[in-house]
Amino acid sequence: MSSATPATPAAAPAPTTVTVIGLGNLGQALARAFLDQGHKVTVWNRSQRKADELVALGAALAPTPTAAVEAGELVVVCVLDYTTVRDLLTPVGDALAGRVVVNLTSGTPDPARELGTWVTGRGAAYVDGAVYAIPQTIGTPEAFVLYSGDADAFAAYRALLEPLGSPVFVGADAGLAPVHDVALLSGMYGMFAGFFQTVAVGRSAGIEAAPVTELLVRWLKEALGALPAFAAEIDARDYRTQTSNIDINAVGLANILTATRDQGVGVDLLQPLHELFQRQLAEGHGSESMARAIESLR
Amino acid sequence: MSSATPATPAAAPAPTTVTVIGLGNLGQALARAFLDQGHKVTVWNRSQRKADELVALGAALAPTPTAAVEAGELVVVCVLDYTTVRDLLTPVGDALAGRVVVNLTSGTPDPARELGTWVTGRGAAYVDGAVYAIPQTIGTPEAFVLYSGDADAFAAYRALLEPLGSPVFVGADAGLAPVHDVALLSGMYGMFAGFFQTVAVGRSAGIEAAPVTELLVRWLKEALGALPAFAAEIDARDYRTQTSNIDINAVGLANILTATRDQGVGVDLLQPLHELFQRQLAEGHGSESMARAIESLR
Repeated sequence: MSSATPATPAAAPAPTTVTVIGLGNLGQALARAFLDQGHKVTVWNRSQRKADELVALGAALAPTPTAAVEAGELVVVCVLDYTTVRDLLTPVGDALAGRVVVNLTSGTPDPARELGTWVTGRGAAYVDGAVYAIPQTIGTPEAFVLYSGDADAFAAYRALLEPLGSPVFVGADAGLAPVHDVALLSGMYGMFAGFFQTVAVGRSAGIEAAPVTELLVRWLKEALGALPAFAAEIDARDYRTQTSNIDINAVGLANILTATRDQGVGVDLLQPLHELFQRQLAEGHGSESMARAIESLR
Repeated sequence: MSSATPATPAAAPAPTTVTVIGLGNLGQALARAFLDQGHKVTVWNRSQRKADELVALGAALAPTPTAAVEAGELVVVCVLDYTTVRDLLTPVGDALAGRVVVNLTSGTPDPARELGTWVTGRGAAYVDGAVYAIPQTIGTPEAFVLYSGDADAFAAYRALLEPLGSPVFVGADAGLAPVHDVALLSGMYGMFAGFFQTVAVGRSAGIEAAPVTELLVRWLKEALGALPAFAAEIDARDYRTQTSNIDINAVGLANILTATRDQGVGVDLLQPLHELFQRQLAEGHGSESMARAIESLR
């Protein structure tokens, strides 16, 4: 901070016109957040019933996607999949011109890039987004949203998007938010798989899910602290370590799999990780960091 | 708090004699913590060189496991595995009488119960423990230790054990700490498997491990908040849900696996979870909670 100007709080975004297309759980939460901010909100959903509460709060219900788009300078789309986005926006066509489309529909990189090209071809700016919230955190400061695509359009609406979760811009390639989405949700599903193993082993010994889950949450919050050091090793391709090597973890995990089977619980969910460790051992990397297992991923 | 007595801080444990057998990373940290507390500490390790630093700090080095045990009213053991514990303690025999053995060696339930029976047969009290610390958290308040076995012996030394990590007693069956250990480490390895998928997908798109791991840690801290609700559903065997059902997650995970393959990354680590979801779908449970996948675990 070299400026001598006193710090001022970020200005609240000026009221504007926002359209929300798609009123699932997330779309409804978004529309409510925009209404709370004082914006003029127009909504559209295939089943109009889902708009009832929002209309009672002051939203306008548009009869068609085209009418919805025409009512908003910012158009936020949150539907089932990218095919649905395309089906809804195709009849809108050139009415998109001059607007900013923020697509929060879950998807994968290539369809996001194709959609971005198509939207841009209609004269609109395209921003792809992925929302990281569990039902308990929607609309709280813990939630965050990754965005990629048109950097200027993102910057112009950043403050307005803030209530959806803290915004993080990951790059100009529209496919980058979906790439991150695939990556981060993979990590989440791995964590869920581990949770199922934890609960199943506990259950086999008469331990209820609630108390063992409380301990698991405590342990994983701590164990997450090990990941940045592993990431640094992976980026440097330098796997020398004094602590958690492949030898130790291969023996540890093998013991866990044996004890799990002894408890009458299956080990399908963890077996593939054990195989990564075995491949690393077979290649002679036992004394190197556990993080090196990623090099055997296939 | 119905008592009118003013609250007083917990008294520091009176100095006592503590023996530490096994001076790996953890054993050394334990011995240092006991020295810091002002106890008379005796150590033994197969390779005496590992005792050098501790001796410089004031620990006594015993020439044999028997001499080590004779020097301490509390004997903490932290070696490679339970076979090693048994091999070390067998020659000690009745010199164990009247002492408390706290075994922090990693192991599985049945060997822990057998060792507990053997130690008790020598006239000593047996407590089994499992330490939850990553290298970065050893000796910090984030670390915690689960104990099971002799409740009175645990209570007598609880304050003394506090610096090893906050102590949690999980039951009188000596096998319970190891059961929890198998359960919680399974959860950790699941989380690590997810981490490898996250980094591999990022790498395939030219994203370094460090930034995507930073986002993953943030996301998983949030997603951990979903686990207690899943645990409650599992305990109640009541899987009705308005939010995260099997249908949604089966489609979501299938899309992730496809996108991951499209990026040229293998999906071995997540495929087994996909199969759990498929079994739930085949049984007609698509509209029920994702937590129900545990019922297909085998």
